Amino acid sequence: MNILAGIVMGSDSDLPVMEKASAVLIELGIPFELTVVSAHRTPARMMEYAAGAHKRGLKVLIAGAGGAAHLPGMLAAVTPLPVIGVPVRSSNSIDGWDSILSILQMPSGVPVATVALNGARNAGILAARILSVADEALQEKLILFMEEQKQKVEGKVKALKDKGFPNEFDRF
Amino acid sequence: MNILAGIVMGSDSDLPVMEKASAVLIELGIPFELTVVSAHRTPARMMEYAAGAHKRGLKVLIAGAGGAAHLPGMLAAVTPLPVIGVPVRSSNSIDGWDSILSILQMPSGVPVATVALNGARNAGILAARILSVADEALQEKLILFMEEQKQKVEGKVKALKDKGFPNEFDRF
Amino acid sequence: MNILAGIVMGSDSDLPVMEKASAVLIELGIPFELTVVSAHRTPARMMEYAAGAHKRGLKVLIAGAGGAAHLPGMLAAVTPLPVIGVPVRSSNSIDGWDSILSILQMPSGVPVATVALNGARNAGILAARILSVADEALQEKLILFMEEQKQKVEGKVKALKDKGFPNEFDRF
Amino acid sequence: MNILAGIVMGSDSDLPVMEKASAVLIELGIPFELTVVSAHRTPARMMEYAAGAHKRGLKVLIAGAGGAAHLPGMLAAVTPLPVIGVPVRSSNSIDGWDSILSILQMPSGVPVATVALNGARNAGILAARILSVADEALQEKLILFMEEQKQKVEGKVKALKDKGFPNEFDRF
Amino acid sequence: MNILAGIVMGSDSDLPVMEKASAVLIELGIPFELTVVSAHRTPARMMEYAAGAHKRGLKVLIAGAGGAAHLPGMLAAVTPLPVIGVPVRSSNSIDGWDSILSILQMPSGVPVATVALNGARNAGILAARILSVADEALQEKLILFMEEQKQKVEGKVKALKDKGFPNEFDRF
Amino acid sequence: MNILAGIVMGSDSDLPVMEKASAVLIELGIPFELTVVSAHRTPARMMEYAAGAHKRGLKVLIAGAGGAAHLPGMLAAVTPLPVIGVPVRSSNSIDGWDSILSILQMPSGVPVATVALNGARNAGILAARILSVADEALQEKLILFMEEQKQKVEGKVKALKDKGFPNEFDRF
Amino acid sequence: MNILAGIVMGSDSDLPVMEKASAVLIELGIPFELTVVSAHRTPARMMEYAAGAHKRGLKVLIAGAGGAAHLPGMLAAVTPLPVIGVPVRSSNSIDGWDSILSILQMPSGVPVATVALNGARNAGILAARILSVADEALQEKLILFMEEQKQKVEGKVKALKDKGFPNEFDRF
Amino acid sequence: MNILAGIVMGSDSDLPVMEKASAVLIELGIPFELTVVSAHRTPARMMEYAAGAHKRGLKVLIAGAGGAAHLPGMLAAVTPLPVIGVPVRSSNSIDGWDSILSILQMPSGVPVATVALNGARNAGILAARILSVADEALQEKLILFMEEQKQKVEGKVKALKDKGFPNEFDRF
Repeated sequence: MNILAGIVMGSDSDLPVMEKASAVLIELGIPFELTVVSAHRTPARMMEYAAGAHKRGLKVLIAGAGGAAHLPGMLAAVTPLPVIGVPVRSSNSIDGWDSILSILQMPSGVPVATVALNGARNAGILAARILSVADEALQEKLILFMEEQKQKVEGKVKALKDKGFPNEFDRF
Repeated sequence: MNILAGIVMGSDSDLPVMEKASAVLIELGIPFELTVVSAHRTPARMMEYAAGAHKRGLKVLIAGAGGAAHLPGMLAAVTPLPVIGVPVRSSNSIDGWDSILSILQMPSGVPVATVALNGARNAGILAARILSVADEALQEKLILFMEEQKQKVEGKVKALKDKGFPNEFDRF
Repeated sequence: MNILAGIVMGSDSDLPVMEKASAVLIELGIPFELTVVSAHRTPARMMEYAAGAHKRGLKVLIAGAGGAAHLPGMLAAVTPLPVIGVPVRSSNSIDGWDSILSILQMPSGVPVATVALNGARNAGILAARILSVADEALQEKLILFMEEQKQKVEGKVKALKDKGFPNEFDRF
Repeated sequence: MNILAGIVMGSDSDLPVMEKASAVLIELGIPFELTVVSAHRTPARMMEYAAGAHKRGLKVLIAGAGGAAHLPGMLAAVTPLPVIGVPVRSSNSIDGWDSILSILQMPSGVPVATVALNGARNAGILAARILSVADEALQEKLILFMEEQKQKVEGKVKALKDKGFPNEFDRF
Repeated sequence: MNILAGIVMGSDSDLPVMEKASAVLIELGIPFELTVVSAHRTPARMMEYAAGAHKRGLKVLIAGAGGAAHLPGMLAAVTPLPVIGVPVRSSNSIDGWDSILSILQMPSGVPVATVALNGARNAGILAARILSVADEALQEKLILFMEEQKQKVEGKVKALKDKGFPNEFDRF
Repeated sequence: MNILAGIVMGSDSDLPVMEKASAVLIELGIPFELTVVSAHRTPARMMEYAAGAHKRGLKVLIAGAGGAAHLPGMLAAVTPLPVIGVPVRSSNSIDGWDSILSILQMPSGVPVATVALNGARNAGILAARILSVADEALQEKLILFMEEQKQKVEGKVKALKDKGFPNEFDRF
Repeated sequence: MNILAGIVMGSDSDLPVMEKASAVLIELGIPFELTVVSAHRTPARMMEYAAGAHKRGLKVLIAGAGGAAHLPGMLAAVTPLPVIGVPVRSSNSIDGWDSILSILQMPSGVPVATVALNGARNAGILAARILSVADEALQEKLILFMEEQKQKVEGKVKALKDKGFPNEFDRF
Repeated sequence: MNILAGIVMGSDSDLPVMEKASAVLIELGIPFELTVVSAHRTPARMMEYAAGAHKRGLKVLIAGAGGAAHLPGMLAAVTPLPVIGVPVRSSNSIDGWDSILSILQMPSGVPVATVALNGARNAGILAARILSVADEALQEKLILFMEEQKQKVEGKVKALKDKGFPNEFDRF
């Protein structure tokens, strides 16, 4: 099966965050690849990765980075694919503000689809929503996925009531 | 031709910003609709809009709002489509920080593809990149679009040199 | 006895914070209910909860959420009741700034009574102050409650003096 | 008719903002008083105002102030009534951050119901919601008020469509 | 000997920070008192403390508080004495920003001499500098105090050199 | 009459702000001097000014600066006098945050009495409060000064009532 | 004469700021070139510029950009030359915070010498200081340059005294 | 061999951060000295250090400090050498914001080359890049140094692939 999503990160220290993107892609059955591409330490590699991605059949990129995070924006400058940026609260980041602003505030002409700080799981789901534009079955899966999320909350509603918290809204 | 993108905004005061999204969609030949949907003043309308969007054939939503901007996130909670959020620096916003954070920092499970403050033009381009997942001709257009951006910069390079600024890098 | 206050939270991970609201309501003898209502994972449930609250006899709502916290504002968009918002410094929050701004900065027409970050105890006291508008005995209790707070400080004044810190102001 | 709401502000320079609170109370038929009470320039007056408010029959206070805004919190320290705080972006304020934080971040035991920066109109609406706890007719008015807000948005929806923006969702 | 400085704090949880003010006053031989005065829980006590301080012979006040920290500013509103404010990074504070801004940003007419976050030791030294306006011997002590600080640094310079760090500037 | 207060600023562009300090000193009859001392452009002059101030009979320094504002802190490092720092929102400042933090956050041992952003008038009043430690007549003047501030507010209270705003608290 | 410094900017809208860098280089007699290099719109041009700079004899680069400013960091990733970054408060920037953080917070291994927001003049002076490492005559010029700055301040000192501001420190 | 770089810090508590600057200088074979120079506790020492540095043959200074960090800027005010500033997130700093702003935001005329928060290693590399202006062999070393960084990333790429993460881009 063709790889559709490329997950890249500026450093392997971002892996604990970025693995959540790959986990949700596995969960939704979307073939992906995952590797390290550093805008600052391997700029030529980054250019090559970005330039070739759509030619290799990839449809969406997910890029995570921290601090002065240039990877998502630089990929978006080279590839025509939609790029999802994950600001990572890395050790060299100021509470994540630098990661967020240097990914989000792209100039007119070169968009990055930014998700929440450390929001790699949401990056994976967003990638799936994007791929579902061309894949009706995937959209069905996503609707189910949302239904399951709802049911998990309902389970917690029940658990709270069972613990003895008064609740007149839910009549089980 | 089928409408593929829905552009909605919390208030018609957001129109001067959000029109830049529609302008780029027109430029790229993508059929869209544009209207006002207020999460706070018309919550039922918002729920209905979000619930029906994918059934009406829409493939991507662009939502702009300012201050405690709940529209993009609430749409994303109801629709399975990718939702692009545009933080608007409206008059009731604190330099845009509230708009950004209340759109960007969505909880796990419900992503919003956030673009820069007032970045509606980038929201339109991102929508086009997303739609190009299912439309090769559109991807070609986007590659051309990037090429044109490059050429505009080169024009400015020339203009600066013509103004007399020394420049040994560019040999025209 | 009729339930007067509804305490809801976006996730059961907010419970350790939000329980302080219920604790103070118990202390002041105000009947309440407490459950999970997620704006993002259970939007329909949220709409239903908000639409029915005043019909079920509730007089005030307390809603806690973190990150892009849409629950308090969305409830306030549907119910005519006063809604108290508690910004929660949850794990996915940026030091609480996102929680605060996405609850506080509501647009004109739809107010949320926002309390301090993690200020669920104050949310409970504020709910009591609001209910005392229709309940003179409760106002008396609140005056007593403030008197007791004063006495606790006086106890600490004495303790500090007993520890040997010089203090010429208080002549015990 | 008895005065139910007291609107106070730290300086008459806050009047252009705070008048929006009185305007909405007039609109909703709620008797109020409005004056200047400065925590810093007239501390004794402030103590007296706060101590007597509930004895004079007031049911809710709205207090606006800017910079190191101590008025709402100090009133709340003395009165048992619900106090609504309006952070004002005054000339001596740092983009409103000081006004917001010094009103919002009250210690446990003394709540202030904080609204958005310059959100005096919302303070008035919140006061009405609070008073409606003891006044069913007022709650009816508030439901109507929300309905009218909805209709204003629908008017704008129509206006945008009439301007020629495509809109397949609304079939007028 | 007459008490010259009053150290007060909003809560006894501020004691670990505020004790550093008393420690330096002891070191410099300045008689002081130290107690709890809560602007929010004991407003009448606070008014009384502030109103009487200069009559009891005090010459300077040091007030520490966290969160929406109103104590220093309210004291300064009542007393003609110089008031030194210590923003405390308490548990209910947002990284100290609220404490700083609600102490520092006082309106024109009512100054508070604000020191760094948790800077109680500096508050004590500042109180000594203020008292030295009327006490030449104290000024001499402060000059010595600064000399000792310099010597401590010189000790560290030597220690670093002894550890083997190259240093051609200092010839011991 | 001996000069008691030295007002210095980093640049003559700070004069419109810093003149408010001299204005209030004139109002209170306190002899002062005012000049430009730049920590960055005239470091030797700054060292000399600071080292000699107490020898020339000055009792308090007021220093205003913007951006990376080192003047107040460097003066405080050399002089034993109390130094009041005025953060100036100059053209090269980021909304004043840099000015505030580089004046306020002095390390332990070297205090600066920081006032609000652009708060030069408060710096003058604070200088007067400090000087009143050695001057009972000045303390009397300051008590009168506070009384006059109170009366100005009362004038505004009357003006608002005369404009027709309901006010049951003030019975004129 | 060989070009020693390359001044580049992300967009010609940065020219009014960045011209101040070229102005000071002209003042100090340092040969430079100035052009537009956009990391996002002309990534290949940027790579080529950075890769060739040291081969063409350049000794230092000055790069200005606003918003998610990737140009300085990306140049530094490719060239071995010292790169000076100028954060520009462009129209699409959030008060300059995004520009600052995305230039300053570079990961370990790839430094950018960041100057103040809009600090292009300082970037030029810093470039001169850097070049003076290999050019004693230039160091002499810089010492003179600092002397002239001092004299300008002294002129202002005199002007203030001539205006009538008391000043006992300066005896002209 | 002549010492070329001076590393100074405001306090020996900054040593764990600042040692990373000396480590990289050792790695690159650049002779340096390292000591404590406190702008606030030893102002005369600081003036003397700055005034003599270029006369002793030093070519570049690296200065680290936290909180209201005046050391880098004051050195730059006195020396004609390039000064690299390292904002340190010390215990008395507010998340590093004060350190950054009081080093970065220098006024026109007196530049400091600021690196990332705690970025002492980058300060060392930047010093090397600066020294390479006069030392071709050092430039060669820096090019090698960048090559090694690239190879480390490639090692991690391989490690991730070996762990089983899919990766079609890298064909080993």
